[in-house]
Amino acid sequence: MTHRSESRTQVGIVGAGPAGLLLATLLSRAGVDAVVLESRSRAYVEQRVRAGVLEAPTVELLREAGVAGRLDREGMPHSGISLRFAEDTASPQTDHRIDFDDLVGRGIVVYGQQEVVKDLIADRVDTRSEPVEFEVSDVAVHDIATDAPSITYTAADGTARTLRCDVIAGCDGFHGVCRGAFPEGALRIAERVYPFGWLGVLAKAAPTQDELVYANHDRGFALYSMRSPEVTRLYLQVPADTEAGDWSSSRIWDELDTRLACDGFRMNTGEFLEKPSVTGMRSMVAEPMRHGRLFLAGDAAHIVPPTGAKGMNLAIADVRVLAEALTGFFGSGSETGLDEYSATCLRRVWRAEHFSWWMTSMLHRFDDTDPNGDAFGRALQLSQLRYTATSRAAATGLAENYVGLPHGSI
Amino acid sequence: MTHRSESRTQVGIVGAGPAGLLLATLLSRAGVDAVVLESRSRAYVEQRVRAGVLEAPTVELLREAGVAGRLDREGMPHSGISLRFAEDTASPQTDHRIDFDDLVGRGIVVYGQQEVVKDLIADRVDTRSEPVEFEVSDVAVHDIATDAPSITYTAADGTARTLRCDVIAGCDGFHGVCRGAFPEGALRIAERVYPFGWLGVLAKAAPTQDELVYANHDRGFALYSMRSPEVTRLYLQVPADTEAGDWSSSRIWDELDTRLACDGFRMNTGEFLEKPSVTGMRSMVAEPMRHGRLFLAGDAAHIVPPTGAKGMNLAIADVRVLAEALTGFFGSGSETGLDEYSATCLRRVWRAEHFSWWMTSMLHRFDDTDPNGDAFGRALQLSQLRYTATSRAAATGLAENYVGLPHGSI
Repeated sequence: MTHRSESRTQVGIVGAGPAGLLLATLLSRAGVDAVVLESRSRAYVEQRVRAGVLEAPTVELLREAGVAGRLDREGMPHSGISLRFAEDTASPQTDHRIDFDDLVGRGIVVYGQQEVVKDLIADRVDTRSEPVEFEVSDVAVHDIATDAPSITYTAADGTARTLRCDVIAGCDGFHGVCRGAFPEGALRIAERVYPFGWLGVLAKAAPTQDELVYANHDRGFALYSMRSPEVTRLYLQVPADTEAGDWSSSRIWDELDTRLACDGFRMNTGEFLEKPSVTGMRSMVAEPMRHGRLFLAGDAAHIVPPTGAKGMNLAIADVRVLAEALTGFFGSGSETGLDEYSATCLRRVWRAEHFSWWMTSMLHRFDDTDPNGDAFGRALQLSQLRYTATSRAAATGLAENYVGLPHGSI
Repeated sequence: MTHRSESRTQVGIVGAGPAGLLLATLLSRAGVDAVVLESRSRAYVEQRVRAGVLEAPTVELLREAGVAGRLDREGMPHSGISLRFAEDTASPQTDHRIDFDDLVGRGIVVYGQQEVVKDLIADRVDTRSEPVEFEVSDVAVHDIATDAPSITYTAADGTARTLRCDVIAGCDGFHGVCRGAFPEGALRIAERVYPFGWLGVLAKAAPTQDELVYANHDRGFALYSMRSPEVTRLYLQVPADTEAGDWSSSRIWDELDTRLACDGFRMNTGEFLEKPSVTGMRSMVAEPMRHGRLFLAGDAAHIVPPTGAKGMNLAIADVRVLAEALTGFFGSGSETGLDEYSATCLRRVWRAEHFSWWMTSMLHRFDDTDPNGDAFGRALQLSQLRYTATSRAAATGLAENYVGLPHGSI
């Protein structure tokens, strides 16, 4: 029998993405011990480019947790977005701004997910010397239906280890092991896979726009966004089976030019800072988000298409609920918060799923073979775009979802 | 060659539904001559039960036209509707009121379409002795691409007649002849057929509710509505191929009881005032709404599913635009209004098509074979219902569409 070195903590956290790291931070503030296990290296997770829009409640929570210093200095506050589309096939595209400040009095902050990760790791590891174990492998969770679960893994140095804990938080993403640890039949999965993906590029090019532009062009959706005053982030709707390597940089820039065309609009081009890649578009919710002492948070439990910029924000909303529940549990022994965790999170999850589906349906081009791709479906899209651009009620609906309904309000 | 007796008018109107009759009334007020031709009898069209919700701009227009005396005495003003649904499968249904007065400061009036028809016929025929020819047959329109179109028909007395006119208004409904008179290829049809219908009953039973109730029950949609202080109008979602005769009255009442169940809710039952019937659910738009001197209005050009209560209201919005265009044309010779007619109407038509599709999608049960009938689709519905019930922005969106955006505002 292999000797396994053992250790103990209150909360074993699988995954050092925004969900796992922020959960560790919130627990630390509340005096609850946690260990974070991550299969990648610190350098990898600090460079991994993902989402870039922080909704208002996310920013507030990061401030409350004391990890928003750099975010407040370097983040780019935006008070609106533009919807870009043509009124009809004979007209050019025009911009219709959704003014968040005016409509709901709050905005978003553009700040890369990897920057949030860097800030959380720096706070935990460098400032407080609290444990994050990187480059672990063979992670498995055990005895989740008991009050003494454990996590086995191989540490970066090759040692086989067991982490005994009271609770396990599965923050290990869509491809992680935790969701799969639920017993057969314990999860209901609701899912929708879209017949397209996003070809994304990160370009060393100063943004020419102050805000994000969502374009519904006849040739497909395009998104103009930015990550910093020097870096532009751009996306093109492509068929789901697209090989990013088939797209030359000049083809990408030409297509962006075509789809983002608008009177007075120009883009800066620049070298790609990472290889263009295609992200599939999927909606998925696994319910319930808890089994025994295993709690799922973030992408481990639910996926949204990126159109509504909700993925990271939902993960952060989850761990706020989980941190409060665990604080109650370890403080007073109350299981109320733990028992309510899944239902509480799922209300916000489904709100975000609906909003993300709504944005995705409104902005993408569905081809003729799709039930939404007929003449009626296309005209519905245009009608919804026009309505959203002209009705204060409809624009407010978009705005309040995009900037994020307050935590605890739904 | 058959001898045809000939007559002449400025506007030949095919169809004596709300669209054709109101168009004739508005033209009469503006000093433009018109003749209305109708294949049914006066008694038939005055008894034909159809829609029953007048949106605010419809009521205002009928008042302006001087035909709202009885409507203002007998119509039932409503300042809201209820959405009835269960928060989850384990909970009972509860009501979520959409308060039109509070949200948008306007309401609707419940008043049967056949009552509007009676009022318009009484004004035209009895009060003003202006022409409506009932029980005509063999209607055909000719030379619509010229400035001297005509309508041939057989009058009630069997005489073959030709009505020469400057303009023809096709107000003859979905099954009428006018849409078919467009040349091959001149119309683009956008269409969506839903896999269900509404089984409707009209019961001699005093309403127990002051407002309409839209219920999304696991067994399917149900609508509680009323037509007068003595008459209840009820609908059940049924498969599209349902034979109304297969439903006994006790089965209908039992199913209504089940789907409308809610704490404190009761219904009065009573004999059916007409045979229950099944209405198919369809969205259809024919574009453009004009070819040469033939103008389509109402159901002749577009169909909405009844869920948004928009059919008659759209027809009335069309003829307001058409009456103004024709008044300009006959007054000053300006063709501007005629040239803009189709595009002007279609903006409102597509708003209503989108709203009707939105209400239909949110409230009906889609079965497993439908792309919207999976677990994800069902959860989206619930999320949208909850959001509409709890967000002021979302409720305002429903309210402003339901009570009707002001004529000319879109």
